[in-house]
Amino acid sequence: MQLDCTFRVQIPHRPGHLAQVVGAIAEEQGLIGDVATVALGRDATVRDITVEVRDLPQAERILALMEAIPGVRVIWHRDRALLRHEGGKLFIEAAHPVRTVQEMRDYYTPGVARVCTAIAAEPDLASRYTMIGRTVAICTNGTRVLGLGDIGPVAAMPVMEGKAVFYRQFVGISAMPILIDAKDPDHFVDTVMRISPTFGGIHLEDISAPACFEIERRLIDALAKPVMHDDVHGTAVVTLAAVMSACRQVGIELDAATVGQIGLGAAGFGIAALMADSGIHRVLASDPSAAARDHATLNHRIVIADVDTIMAEADVVVATTGRPGLIRPAMVRPRQVILALSNPDPEIEPEQAIAAGAALAADGRTVNNVLGYPGIFRGALLAGAREINLEMKLAAARAIAELSEAMELVPDPLDPRVHDHVAQAVLDAALRSGVAHPDRAPSGL
Amino acid sequence: MQLDCTFRVQIPHRPGHLAQVVGAIAEEQGLIGDVATVALGRDATVRDITVEVRDLPQAERILALMEAIPGVRVIWHRDRALLRHEGGKLFIEAAHPVRTVQEMRDYYTPGVARVCTAIAAEPDLASRYTMIGRTVAICTNGTRVLGLGDIGPVAAMPVMEGKAVFYRQFVGISAMPILIDAKDPDHFVDTVMRISPTFGGIHLEDISAPACFEIERRLIDALAKPVMHDDVHGTAVVTLAAVMSACRQVGIELDAATVGQIGLGAAGFGIAALMADSGIHRVLASDPSAAARDHATLNHRIVIADVDTIMAEADVVVATTGRPGLIRPAMVRPRQVILALSNPDPEIEPEQAIAAGAALAADGRTVNNVLGYPGIFRGALLAGAREINLEMKLAAARAIAELSEAMELVPDPLDPRVHDHVAQAVLDAALRSGVAHPDRAPSGL
Repeated sequence: MQLDCTFRVQIPHRPGHLAQVVGAIAEEQGLIGDVATVALGRDATVRDITVEVRDLPQAERILALMEAIPGVRVIWHRDRALLRHEGGKLFIEAAHPVRTVQEMRDYYTPGVARVCTAIAAEPDLASRYTMIGRTVAICTNGTRVLGLGDIGPVAAMPVMEGKAVFYRQFVGISAMPILIDAKDPDHFVDTVMRISPTFGGIHLEDISAPACFEIERRLIDALAKPVMHDDVHGTAVVTLAAVMSACRQVGIELDAATVGQIGLGAAGFGIAALMADSGIHRVLASDPSAAARDHATLNHRIVIADVDTIMAEADVVVATTGRPGLIRPAMVRPRQVILALSNPDPEIEPEQAIAAGAALAADGRTVNNVLGYPGIFRGALLAGAREINLEMKLAAARAIAELSEAMELVPDPLDPRVHDHVAQAVLDAALRSGVAHPDRAPSGL
Repeated sequence: MQLDCTFRVQIPHRPGHLAQVVGAIAEEQGLIGDVATVALGRDATVRDITVEVRDLPQAERILALMEAIPGVRVIWHRDRALLRHEGGKLFIEAAHPVRTVQEMRDYYTPGVARVCTAIAAEPDLASRYTMIGRTVAICTNGTRVLGLGDIGPVAAMPVMEGKAVFYRQFVGISAMPILIDAKDPDHFVDTVMRISPTFGGIHLEDISAPACFEIERRLIDALAKPVMHDDVHGTAVVTLAAVMSACRQVGIELDAATVGQIGLGAAGFGIAALMADSGIHRVLASDPSAAARDHATLNHRIVIADVDTIMAEADVVVATTGRPGLIRPAMVRPRQVILALSNPDPEIEPEQAIAAGAALAADGRTVNNVLGYPGIFRGALLAGAREINLEMKLAAARAIAELSEAMELVPDPLDPRVHDHVAQAVLDAALRSGVAHPDRAPSGL
């Protein structure tokens, strides 16, 4: 598995020594990332050099080459991600400290009883006087985590914490991972239903298909608050934004275009359905599984086809199959747009697709979910929305596409303007489409 | 209902005017709390004056008196607790911001996949690389909240958030309120079981008896992590500490004493059971409910008696009945210790009890749960303990009693040394009693 390895290296403080270290890394095909100076002495400096490697043996070979340089000493080398995860990524903090007797009377007894009484009399006040309305549960059973598959809820936690970090950093939402030890949809739905009073919205994450479809549908029907499976709809919103940008760049009119979706798992189905509902002229889709194909045709605008037909007829192709190399260069149609999104290895390398005549090609690194869900949920919570409807998802996709720069398909997710823009577009769409209850908008978001 | 009302008052900046305002408050029997200067002008100052009143009409009468003073203007007056609860009391924060591409690679993809893989291979690593091991769920169904009764889970949220504030402030634990829409013990237990992978410990709160006893017992049996209903055991620990302090002050030897517990609800049962298990010579207990009495005798050291017998025979009496005035002065035995803990109105006012001959008397304001649970859970989590056993609870009670000052029954909960001392005592007891797994101790706590 690819990893970032940090080497803490003591290097003689004389010209040419750092160059030798860098040369050793290059010789073993390591890609250098951050270089940070940890200590600067008279005779030697200590630096943390992070190197992207394919696997641990490659890191060990780089280590051996560095240690062979006279005067150079590697103090330690570690997987940088593990280093950075020490202690976990989230803390639950108090909005205000309680330092005095008066503050204890305000925030705890006896004051708290008056707040409880007020909410008991008028439940909507909960969005004003508690964290509920600005808090989202990130619920998973860990059955389909990244490219790792069914690793269970506990091992999925680092992903959930990461999602929550972005919620807080980009849009101020408090997001709590909830690991659910239940694969059966009945049990999963029951559990989320019973804890749902705690949260203003339910973000479903990394649940395998087809259970994820049933779980999401039942929760949407049962709860009058935003519920969204990010792997389905978040991915679809960001991918549709990328498709919009791509078509703008190469001059394809989506209203008149044929698009093809190869792969109808959770993400693929979401993408195909959102493209179909967005007003694209014609949407073809394929999957080797009959069940997946049947499920896709629940959306009547999706037309089932085979891969060859899609490659021959579609102006834009999106692939989410997990099958590297599925699209051979000979299958590429001139002037086609190809988004081969499977991670870490795409259905066709972008360079290959371009060489075969594609007008534009990209892989999964260019389409990042982090662009979607924070703004979508912020807009929905601020609207007091009872659901996340099609209008809100399309508004989010257009907002993302609007901010993508000249030759990029999507904007930089670390640019905070993106998330504000998405949230505002989603809020507006909720108000326009009649699912908003602004009197339920939370304080403090 | 008693409340703290904040008046924002503009007062002429001349000698004697503030005195008139204070006089007006006194005339209507208001008790002045904090006075904060908000703005200081040439001619007038603006101050926030907080006044403890019995009810809203009293606040309105104070308002009228203040406004009748020439030159004084009340800008607004509001329930201080509601003001302070605006926006809720908790935020879920990132331990580290993600500002660069390298940080995104570390904390999210692709780095996070390596952390997931490591935990999948070695589940105990979750306590090192995630928030799980240092996080507690505060679970309630809102069926018995403070003195308010069954107000439901959402209206209970301000209490749960308050408990979590103390967890973070006093012992660094991240505590998440979980509101559970289930009164049936089966449903409640199932729900907590299914979300339990998320948390290092389960704090049960404000669940009515007798369901709370079954719920706690089943969760303790099923989960190899700390589970504790604070209303039962947290209250018991702090009350036992108060009893220890009281007996030290008046010279009663607990080993040879008779104690009586009047009232066998959640708190009363917990107190009676912990006193019985602590080695006190003889524990009498009473309750009007046959079911509550039967449940109490599950602890064979508890002897059922009536209130008159308890008052006649016990050296120390604890009452948690919710029945103000239950203990009449004539029932008090000379040199008795009486802790009449029902809030807001005790079974006998401490002054009455002293006048009737008691050696020491106190009401519920002196015994605060906040002294117990934070240190108990911190000690249990740091021990990687699979349960909170009797030894740990007794160690916590002794630790609290040790720190109470000369004439106080318990120490000040705002003194941070208390919680460290309790945590250390609980950790030591867990290690001594063989329920610790120190290799599961979480990072970052």
